[in-house]
Amino acid sequence: MRGSIFGKMFSMTTFGESHGPALGVVLDGVPSGLDFNLEDLQAMLDKRAPGRSKGVTARKEADKAEILSGVFENKTLGTPIAVIIRNTNQRSKDYDKLKDNYRPGHADRTYDLKYGIRDHRGGGRSSGRETVARVVAGYFASLVLPKVKVNTFISKLGPFECENIIKSFPQDLGTYNFGDPSKDQEIEKYLIDLKAKGDSVGGRISVNIENCPVGLGEPAFDKLKADLAKAVLSIGACVAFSFGAGVKMADMSGQEVSVDSANFGGIEGGISNGEMINLDLTFKPTSTVGANAKEGRHDPCILPRAVVVVESMVRVVLADHFLRQKAYEV
Amino acid sequence: MRGSIFGKMFSMTTFGESHGPALGVVLDGVPSGLDFNLEDLQAMLDKRAPGRSKGVTARKEADKAEILSGVFENKTLGTPIAVIIRNTNQRSKDYDKLKDNYRPGHADRTYDLKYGIRDHRGGGRSSGRETVARVVAGYFASLVLPKVKVNTFISKLGPFECENIIKSFPQDLGTYNFGDPSKDQEIEKYLIDLKAKGDSVGGRISVNIENCPVGLGEPAFDKLKADLAKAVLSIGACVAFSFGAGVKMADMSGQEVSVDSANFGGIEGGISNGEMINLDLTFKPTSTVGANAKEGRHDPCILPRAVVVVESMVRVVLADHFLRQKAYEV
Amino acid sequence: MRGSIFGKMFSMTTFGESHGPALGVVLDGVPSGLDFNLEDLQAMLDKRAPGRSKGVTARKEADKAEILSGVFENKTLGTPIAVIIRNTNQRSKDYDKLKDNYRPGHADRTYDLKYGIRDHRGGGRSSGRETVARVVAGYFASLVLPKVKVNTFISKLGPFECENIIKSFPQDLGTYNFGDPSKDQEIEKYLIDLKAKGDSVGGRISVNIENCPVGLGEPAFDKLKADLAKAVLSIGACVAFSFGAGVKMADMSGQEVSVDSANFGGIEGGISNGEMINLDLTFKPTSTVGANAKEGRHDPCILPRAVVVVESMVRVVLADHFLRQKAYEV
Amino acid sequence: MRGSIFGKMFSMTTFGESHGPALGVVLDGVPSGLDFNLEDLQAMLDKRAPGRSKGVTARKEADKAEILSGVFENKTLGTPIAVIIRNTNQRSKDYDKLKDNYRPGHADRTYDLKYGIRDHRGGGRSSGRETVARVVAGYFASLVLPKVKVNTFISKLGPFECENIIKSFPQDLGTYNFGDPSKDQEIEKYLIDLKAKGDSVGGRISVNIENCPVGLGEPAFDKLKADLAKAVLSIGACVAFSFGAGVKMADMSGQEVSVDSANFGGIEGGISNGEMINLDLTFKPTSTVGANAKEGRHDPCILPRAVVVVESMVRVVLADHFLRQKAYEV
Repeated sequence: MRGSIFGKMFSMTTFGESHGPALGVVLDGVPSGLDFNLEDLQAMLDKRAPGRSKGVTARKEADKAEILSGVFENKTLGTPIAVIIRNTNQRSKDYDKLKDNYRPGHADRTYDLKYGIRDHRGGGRSSGRETVARVVAGYFASLVLPKVKVNTFISKLGPFECENIIKSFPQDLGTYNFGDPSKDQEIEKYLIDLKAKGDSVGGRISVNIENCPVGLGEPAFDKLKADLAKAVLSIGACVAFSFGAGVKMADMSGQEVSVDSANFGGIEGGISNGEMINLDLTFKPTSTVGANAKEGRHDPCILPRAVVVVESMVRVVLADHFLRQKAYEV
Repeated sequence: MRGSIFGKMFSMTTFGESHGPALGVVLDGVPSGLDFNLEDLQAMLDKRAPGRSKGVTARKEADKAEILSGVFENKTLGTPIAVIIRNTNQRSKDYDKLKDNYRPGHADRTYDLKYGIRDHRGGGRSSGRETVARVVAGYFASLVLPKVKVNTFISKLGPFECENIIKSFPQDLGTYNFGDPSKDQEIEKYLIDLKAKGDSVGGRISVNIENCPVGLGEPAFDKLKADLAKAVLSIGACVAFSFGAGVKMADMSGQEVSVDSANFGGIEGGISNGEMINLDLTFKPTSTVGANAKEGRHDPCILPRAVVVVESMVRVVLADHFLRQKAYEV
Repeated sequence: MRGSIFGKMFSMTTFGESHGPALGVVLDGVPSGLDFNLEDLQAMLDKRAPGRSKGVTARKEADKAEILSGVFENKTLGTPIAVIIRNTNQRSKDYDKLKDNYRPGHADRTYDLKYGIRDHRGGGRSSGRETVARVVAGYFASLVLPKVKVNTFISKLGPFECENIIKSFPQDLGTYNFGDPSKDQEIEKYLIDLKAKGDSVGGRISVNIENCPVGLGEPAFDKLKADLAKAVLSIGACVAFSFGAGVKMADMSGQEVSVDSANFGGIEGGISNGEMINLDLTFKPTSTVGANAKEGRHDPCILPRAVVVVESMVRVVLADHFLRQKAYEV
Repeated sequence: MRGSIFGKMFSMTTFGESHGPALGVVLDGVPSGLDFNLEDLQAMLDKRAPGRSKGVTARKEADKAEILSGVFENKTLGTPIAVIIRNTNQRSKDYDKLKDNYRPGHADRTYDLKYGIRDHRGGGRSSGRETVARVVAGYFASLVLPKVKVNTFISKLGPFECENIIKSFPQDLGTYNFGDPSKDQEIEKYLIDLKAKGDSVGGRISVNIENCPVGLGEPAFDKLKADLAKAVLSIGACVAFSFGAGVKMADMSGQEVSVDSANFGGIEGGISNGEMINLDLTFKPTSTVGANAKEGRHDPCILPRAVVVVESMVRVVLADHFLRQKAYEV
């Protein structure tokens, strides 16, 4: 009830401060008998890791997954799966100056107001490092629905913009997870300039879900769109959610909307209809700006690293609703 | 687990098909000793009722609340509060033709796929009538946080648009709940024309929350923004959610954002900071278009009636998080 | 979170004070397409009703079920099923004297301490009348697992005692639901004498579950025995729970126990193993004694009426765990 | 939903197989600002550890707690607290013979039936080692309600029996946690003989809760007695629960019961009334008997080690209900 548990049938409980000993997740509800592959999990974690290029932070975080339970001889047991990731490079000295210093747009002040206490080192529990646990969950969720594609990419990064629906999704999204990888060099230059100026930038991440089973989502409160919205808005920097024609609907007439079922974004009455589900999520610019932002470890744009986190949260929602629906099927 | 329960400490369980005997709600978690006033509840329900003007549906629904439990001598008992609203004007004959007829954008087909059975009369459980139960919950939630203002209004209705933040919120929003009531006559004419053409229109509802207590929202998954997003996206016609600068963040630099704390929309790190919280929600046009839409009982625009539903869902989220935080406070 | 919701996949939310307008239940999680029969439901409610003989209370309560939602043309829709039972014979005058009078063993004083307010008429929410909602839930749970027999009977009532496992369960349990119906006349005489003395008596209810599916119950906290214990201990007058050899285990050696698998009561490692599950539940004597107990409406023994409530709670637990297990099955 | 999460406001998620890398727990809902003391936690874990005397197993398990999150500079942060205990002495060779060998009374067969797969080494998830995580939770629960005494002791161990209510609870319970420590030498001799015979024995653990706050427990389903019953019945070897006069109530008349309020065991209407709460729990004999039981690592009686597990589960229930009640208090 302090908000660290997500999902009902496929549930994850996460924990960890950015500069404590470890972060991690316990998954209660992963079916038994699924094939586990540590390399695949590690590859998914690496997508979130920084330091892949000059445009994103150079901090070396060794996000190495350690399985503590629930997997035996590379099969899931059906029992809770616990995975931890040690914080190897804590450098808490760097953060001592943050103790009495509230950063705007961060949780520093609200945490102090809420708890009366805070681990001030690097954001503590509110740090983006918390999302590493979500990616672990996303990996196991992908085992539940292996045929579902959750194509996730940046469709807007500052001045760069591409379509939010990609028909032939590329195998390799490039360095920045931008929908059009041919722009990578330009993006890199843009981000380096931005960092040199101590500035940052936001953008939009889009999701194209293919092969989603029909019938996912529950009437009333647990509509698929509602649970997807909650899932992605629980990511720190996400500030807006839209599905199908979304915000454009405010400018459309009913007759225009009814022409193309894609406007409904694959969800009718809150329930998946088997068509492509597409989501558009706005992310705010990194809050750290000015002199601090010029230091090595700050990203001028969080979106490249957030892509796999978004994919993971979407996968968890789908796996959860899939298991829920399975319970009731005739 | 079929999605009809919302909230944890202030929870509502809703039920009812549009053409069954009754709709209703059970509230488990309303504190004891609050002053109940049936007239206030009824006034809130009336805001949702149609037929207030020519521009919205003429169907007469007598949404009369009947209290079954949890209130004694006009005080809440702390026990579950059950309230039902009878469906007095069912006219199910009108809907017989819908039995084998899937309406686009409605839940008709997805319900059949999901359940293998459906109450085809007027949408059944997926009808907008389901929201009457949410308004009852919203009324009781308002008793929990009486000082919090949840100013809710239409900031865009087809071609009409006004600011999404209103400094001096008017006592009376006028007939259409549009932020600028001086436009009411123009809007009425617009809607009558739209209906004559068998068309419909969407728009945007904005919420300005004043006096929100500090510290509401939980880290990780139950961030205040995440639970607000889920709450409003669970309303049938809502297709997009944004808070603070929201979608505009995709075009802003970090330095621009940091200039004005209003860009963060009253929520930092997922937790309320005491400033105004503002939300923008996109609603799609009513799905029914063409010849059917010209009939008396269909609204060409759902937004005027949805305003009090949005307000109610927001109030429930705030009451829920207020009680959660109260449990842990030192 | 005020304790009126039970079950996860097959969940019931109950409400109602004994002298308010109505009691009722909302069931969220009943699968769609099940055959509903109002007469069967009514017959189950009648088993709980008093006034069947001289030995139990003569108060006439017309426990007539009214279906408000979730059933259409005698099939369950998969949507929430709401059922209410009106309180037709409230006679609150009788209870006015209870306003400032705490009855020992009742919830009067603890409710006042907890809520600061109480519906003092006849126990309010803590009245045994609350259990009528559980029987409705039990009926619908029986539709989920129609082949499972939940044979429930009194195995001890004051000086009367019979075996707690009945091999050939009789079609008709007689007037008092005692395991040996041939004792009915003696029991009747005993209860009439008891009432004349203003006294009451407790006893034991036993449950023999046949044909329980294998694999119900979850490791760690939601073991089948744990959820069954919670279910029956949530009935007001139940004060002890035991399964299999139960309390006798305190006097047995491991070698004695291992001789007969029936000692394990059909549950190993918290999970049903397909054998008969048997439970023994102790019920305390009705708290009302002395002059008040001689009045017409008080039962000298609650057990005959509690039998169907116990059966219902057990059925809800089994249906809930069945749906949970179904979600994960390969 | 696979049963590894317990508690609502003070919730624990546990994980771990007996022979996997580690066991552990994540606590979501521990208030911030509580004083943490690693030595106290370790002392509580040591109470559960075997090898304290000849009469209990000689297996050396180093149950060393490692804090991964939620504690900073010896204060709880209010964020999730994760604690792991490594399995240092796995000796899985010993268990290879168990692969295709179902032990009666164990979960071996039911796990295979339920999951289709099992970590056969030493019981896996169903091993008693799982309870180490509960003791960690019990320690943190004790910080929430430091003034509440949860006096827990063995009141029956085979032929040894003492009162189930101890007025002056001793500081030191002796080696075997028996209510009368003067019997320790006799008990030791008894257990050594039992083990030599390859036999085992059950008994009864009693709990005397002093200084419990008034008003804990919720009406209907989450009565304090119901949640206590679930909590202790979720411990593998617990087979019966009774509170107050409990099973004796089956032989008492209402007039006898009403003489002494202690018969109600501190709980009226499901809610604590401020008096001593006393519970009696029956534990079955260890299932392993015969030649296997003569080996070093098997306990002939589990009760001495179970005492602190019972205390921990009770503490978690009390902390959970305390926080729940706090949320609603006027």
